[in-house]
Amino acid sequence: MGEKDFTSPFSFLLLLFLFLSLFLHAKAFDEDVSGVGAGPLVKKEERRSLVATEYGEISATEIIDGMGALYHLQFLTLEPNSLFLPVLLHADMVFFVNTGSGRLSWVVDQDEMRRVNVRRGDIYRLQAGSIFYIQSSLAPERQKLRIYAIFANTEESPYEQSIGAYSSINNLVRGFDKKVLQAAFKVPEDLIEAITEGTKAPAIVHAGPTKEKTLWELEARFLKVFLSDTGGMVLSKKTRTFNILEADPDIENCYGRSTTVTRKNFDLLKDSNIGLFLVNLTKGSMMGPHWNPMATEMAIVLQGQGMVRAVCSSSANESECKNMRFMVMEGDVFTVPRFHPMAQMSFNNDSFVFMGFSTTRRRNHPQFLAGKRSVLQTLDKEVLAVSFNVTNTTIDQLLASQADSILLECDRKYVRKHTSFFYSTTLVYLVLVLIEL
Amino acid sequence: MGEKDFTSPFSFLLLLFLFLSLFLHAKAFDEDVSGVGAGPLVKKEERRSLVATEYGEISATEIIDGMGALYHLQFLTLEPNSLFLPVLLHADMVFFVNTGSGRLSWVVDQDEMRRVNVRRGDIYRLQAGSIFYIQSSLAPERQKLRIYAIFANTEESPYEQSIGAYSSINNLVRGFDKKVLQAAFKVPEDLIEAITEGTKAPAIVHAGPTKEKTLWELEARFLKVFLSDTGGMVLSKKTRTFNILEADPDIENCYGRSTTVTRKNFDLLKDSNIGLFLVNLTKGSMMGPHWNPMATEMAIVLQGQGMVRAVCSSSANESECKNMRFMVMEGDVFTVPRFHPMAQMSFNNDSFVFMGFSTTRRRNHPQFLAGKRSVLQTLDKEVLAVSFNVTNTTIDQLLASQADSILLECDRKYVRKHTSFFYSTTLVYLVLVLIEL
Amino acid sequence: MGEKDFTSPFSFLLLLFLFLSLFLHAKAFDEDVSGVGAGPLVKKEERRSLVATEYGEISATEIIDGMGALYHLQFLTLEPNSLFLPVLLHADMVFFVNTGSGRLSWVVDQDEMRRVNVRRGDIYRLQAGSIFYIQSSLAPERQKLRIYAIFANTEESPYEQSIGAYSSINNLVRGFDKKVLQAAFKVPEDLIEAITEGTKAPAIVHAGPTKEKTLWELEARFLKVFLSDTGGMVLSKKTRTFNILEADPDIENCYGRSTTVTRKNFDLLKDSNIGLFLVNLTKGSMMGPHWNPMATEMAIVLQGQGMVRAVCSSSANESECKNMRFMVMEGDVFTVPRFHPMAQMSFNNDSFVFMGFSTTRRRNHPQFLAGKRSVLQTLDKEVLAVSFNVTNTTIDQLLASQADSILLECDRKYVRKHTSFFYSTTLVYLVLVLIEL
Repeated sequence: MGEKDFTSPFSFLLLLFLFLSLFLHAKAFDEDVSGVGAGPLVKKEERRSLVATEYGEISATEIIDGMGALYHLQFLTLEPNSLFLPVLLHADMVFFVNTGSGRLSWVVDQDEMRRVNVRRGDIYRLQAGSIFYIQSSLAPERQKLRIYAIFANTEESPYEQSIGAYSSINNLVRGFDKKVLQAAFKVPEDLIEAITEGTKAPAIVHAGPTKEKTLWELEARFLKVFLSDTGGMVLSKKTRTFNILEADPDIENCYGRSTTVTRKNFDLLKDSNIGLFLVNLTKGSMMGPHWNPMATEMAIVLQGQGMVRAVCSSSANESECKNMRFMVMEGDVFTVPRFHPMAQMSFNNDSFVFMGFSTTRRRNHPQFLAGKRSVLQTLDKEVLAVSFNVTNTTIDQLLASQADSILLECDRKYVRKHTSFFYSTTLVYLVLVLIEL
Repeated sequence: MGEKDFTSPFSFLLLLFLFLSLFLHAKAFDEDVSGVGAGPLVKKEERRSLVATEYGEISATEIIDGMGALYHLQFLTLEPNSLFLPVLLHADMVFFVNTGSGRLSWVVDQDEMRRVNVRRGDIYRLQAGSIFYIQSSLAPERQKLRIYAIFANTEESPYEQSIGAYSSINNLVRGFDKKVLQAAFKVPEDLIEAITEGTKAPAIVHAGPTKEKTLWELEARFLKVFLSDTGGMVLSKKTRTFNILEADPDIENCYGRSTTVTRKNFDLLKDSNIGLFLVNLTKGSMMGPHWNPMATEMAIVLQGQGMVRAVCSSSANESECKNMRFMVMEGDVFTVPRFHPMAQMSFNNDSFVFMGFSTTRRRNHPQFLAGKRSVLQTLDKEVLAVSFNVTNTTIDQLLASQADSILLECDRKYVRKHTSFFYSTTLVYLVLVLIEL
Repeated sequence: MGEKDFTSPFSFLLLLFLFLSLFLHAKAFDEDVSGVGAGPLVKKEERRSLVATEYGEISATEIIDGMGALYHLQFLTLEPNSLFLPVLLHADMVFFVNTGSGRLSWVVDQDEMRRVNVRRGDIYRLQAGSIFYIQSSLAPERQKLRIYAIFANTEESPYEQSIGAYSSINNLVRGFDKKVLQAAFKVPEDLIEAITEGTKAPAIVHAGPTKEKTLWELEARFLKVFLSDTGGMVLSKKTRTFNILEADPDIENCYGRSTTVTRKNFDLLKDSNIGLFLVNLTKGSMMGPHWNPMATEMAIVLQGQGMVRAVCSSSANESECKNMRFMVMEGDVFTVPRFHPMAQMSFNNDSFVFMGFSTTRRRNHPQFLAGKRSVLQTLDKEVLAVSFNVTNTTIDQLLASQADSILLECDRKYVRKHTSFFYSTTLVYLVLVLIEL
């Protein structure tokens, strides 16, 4: 009878309804999640690939900060002597150069073209509406140029998913009819056809031995040899980058180093809501438990592995917020919204380096739980004792032992345990990969 | 045949589809309405209970202002000599003390701890990121400390439902692994276990006869006896509250009193979008018809009962906006968005007192319909006559009789009618409650 | 069997589920699209009619800018000597007078009433919270007063669909109970009944030969004859309009004229995010390919027909953005979001005039593709060649021929082709209309 049902008119109607219904659902669900990184951890292999050519690659992911705003991250990799072709930037972009070197060229508001050399550790910002391109240098060490970029999303400079982060000028021109272009440029038909009907150039191409390139490489070498780091005479204030590797760290001890860059140390970030940070943890170290009252952190692992612990403790019953612990490796992205206490730890066998972007509203003072700078130190001890349901003596002991707040030694036993957790996780992961093959 | 259908494979498939479909719907609907007060009136008994202990209670509700922003309200009740344990505040909080007295202690931005005594009528504001706790005093009159708080929701200081208004510092610490805490605080395992594995303290506890408490009670008594109300020498500007009961009312006559507090009279509200108001209507009085061009009002009934009339007159055909009339009692919350004309009336047998928070953008001048200050007075009389489709004489008479605009005498007949409406409503309500029992 | 199924209990249950399911969907879909112009083009006949009386009409449409904000547009038409009755404005309104003349009267913040004469080409702005009415003049030429208005939607001055753009003061008063009004105005019952129970006046009525009207018409004539255009002595700064027809155009040549108005040339737009523009293309001309980095343009065709080409070239794979070409006629509205290159062309047989509103954040410099002011001119020629995959010579030729960037001659062949396209489209359209009849 079931068989027959499928052919009866009523059943047909039913199925029509059902498919319609499910189709509509599917659509609704698609719109909700389209391309957005699911949750606080985006593994390197979960990034979307946008471009993949012989000369370079671009991958991307989206992050939602704790306040509902969506941020777009891109990871550009240029082989030596390659060229990321000109694009029109749709949103403010702040970027960090992870490896290699090259030259950024851009024009904004019909001004003349500007150029700036960028290298490992450099930070720069381009405004929405700029047209820019990037050429990687052919340095002797042949290092790839790796750039990590965030596209800001504020009311002033919104990032709109429907038009993406930028569009190639190639597409801007080709989008018009041939006839419109012919009239606009006042040129013969065949010239317009050469432009619109040729093979499309990919986003990243070989740079080729152009005159200009050789020139600026000479210039760059010249600068490197003869000039000091500041080079104030040669590059105008507007076209100077900020090197986070050479900046004074906020804190540095035997457990690591932590540096932050905001509008205060880098002029170009002035009317931006983006800040940057770079944390380097030596083996078996920890960034002590802390939270940001006003900033969401989006971090990218540059080197090594680490453990991240993020706490979500809401007083709201209905909260879907969970405490989380995850291991992160090179290329992974992890997000911690404001008011979520966190701690980052390196393993016993490796250092753990990560940089990140923070989206700040108002001024942000990270708050630490342990050590001399702990917020607990300022609270009434008796009230704390009641709060934790322990004796006053316990509270006194808790707050007396540790001096440091920020960069701490990790508990050796803990690290060892997790180091073996790391090995076993990696093993399981490899086994799973092998099974899939 | 219907019976058999349930077991046929096709039917099974169908039901699967259907339940899936309905489940998805249910989910979608849940997300829309999760915890949000449905409409302009939230009865006292409709509030969500967050905490209920021997020593105090907390209930909450959410309000959506006319512009789509969600505001969270909390109602704290502490028994005398109780302690609301320290929490980390996730959003700007503005509060009003309805009854009782106590002391607020807080720390923000690693500054030293600040304390302020609060009592009936006091208004105060804490910034997002503060850690605070509140202790109710053991006054001879043994009054409960009742605090009504709003959590602001602006781009600068957003309220995020997913993490709620605050989290207890207890949970902030317990969210971490024992091992992380041990490394962070550099203390033995058993001490950390004492902290993390003991029974959790409830949000509100008995205050106990602590040294500190006695001290500040002495201090409070000292202040009360020896110092004037301003007490400028003892409390710094930053830690002074504003008492709305002692402030000069904007208007006062035999029909009642109305007081508003904005950033203009109270420094602490400076970069906040929250204002406050307190209205006291004597028996058979009315707050004249008026609207706010720039503010949404969220009012809480402090005493007595009243009638609220809110008009929603849109020119848009598709509007779902309705004119509304509702009776409100002590503890009820009612919301009137901007551009909705309203009038509040007390009954003949009781006064009607309500305070509220208003969320203002730009400056807000309430506009009154009747009396000398009526906006109608400034309009062209002939145009008004055409507008109301009456003679010029009717308009002249309409605008001539009433002098007052704000606090008026209620029509006796009207009040009497509604007073009986009140009694009958109450009766019906009681009957319904009895039936439920 | 199908027949019987409908009456079996199981089938009934199924259908119930299904209808419930579809009903819920329908509702969800309704909410998404309620009254919002679907896409970049809203034909004149697709506008919603709000009011249609003997003395005038109002139609409206909604536009979504590229950044998700919804803008409401209204088209007011008053017959000569008619009166748009007083309304309370819920959002900032900027308007343009397309034809005719009249007088705008308004009051804001309990200030005295202000009046300003408006005529063809005038621009004016009213603040949210104003009460205003408009009377069309009984000029000898008996032209209708046509006003095109946009209602701003910013965080500061949001437009809320649920309460619409304004509400009539008539409804503001009638929304209250008779008894409330009686108490508020302190007048006898019959007077209130005259106000609340009479026939409602429509939104637009005949103005009638009032004293006041005659007076201000005399005054207007007086001004016209005896005073220069500026008339500074008579009208205060606050009540002066800006006439876009008499303003200096940004550019003017034999192909047309383009004028923009922003907060820079017109004080009244100071804290508004709305700008205006007026473009007049002579026969067979083109507004050269260009884009706005910071503004969405919402244009209304005032006269003639034209072709609009809008390019959406995103680097994002998942983008639903499409290149578009559409013909527009008098009364049509077309929207081009920021970063979408566009070109507007007139046909060979008619000029093409359109005005529009632009919603700007930060300053906006339109970027042109062709001519001496082209952004391509500032980029490196070799990089451009690689980008377009053509020789350097081709790029040189492409950028050498055209001098103008903004107002250009349209390719004659192109225009001729499209002119015939226009005639055939119109024919098809007429045929379709006839069939429907």
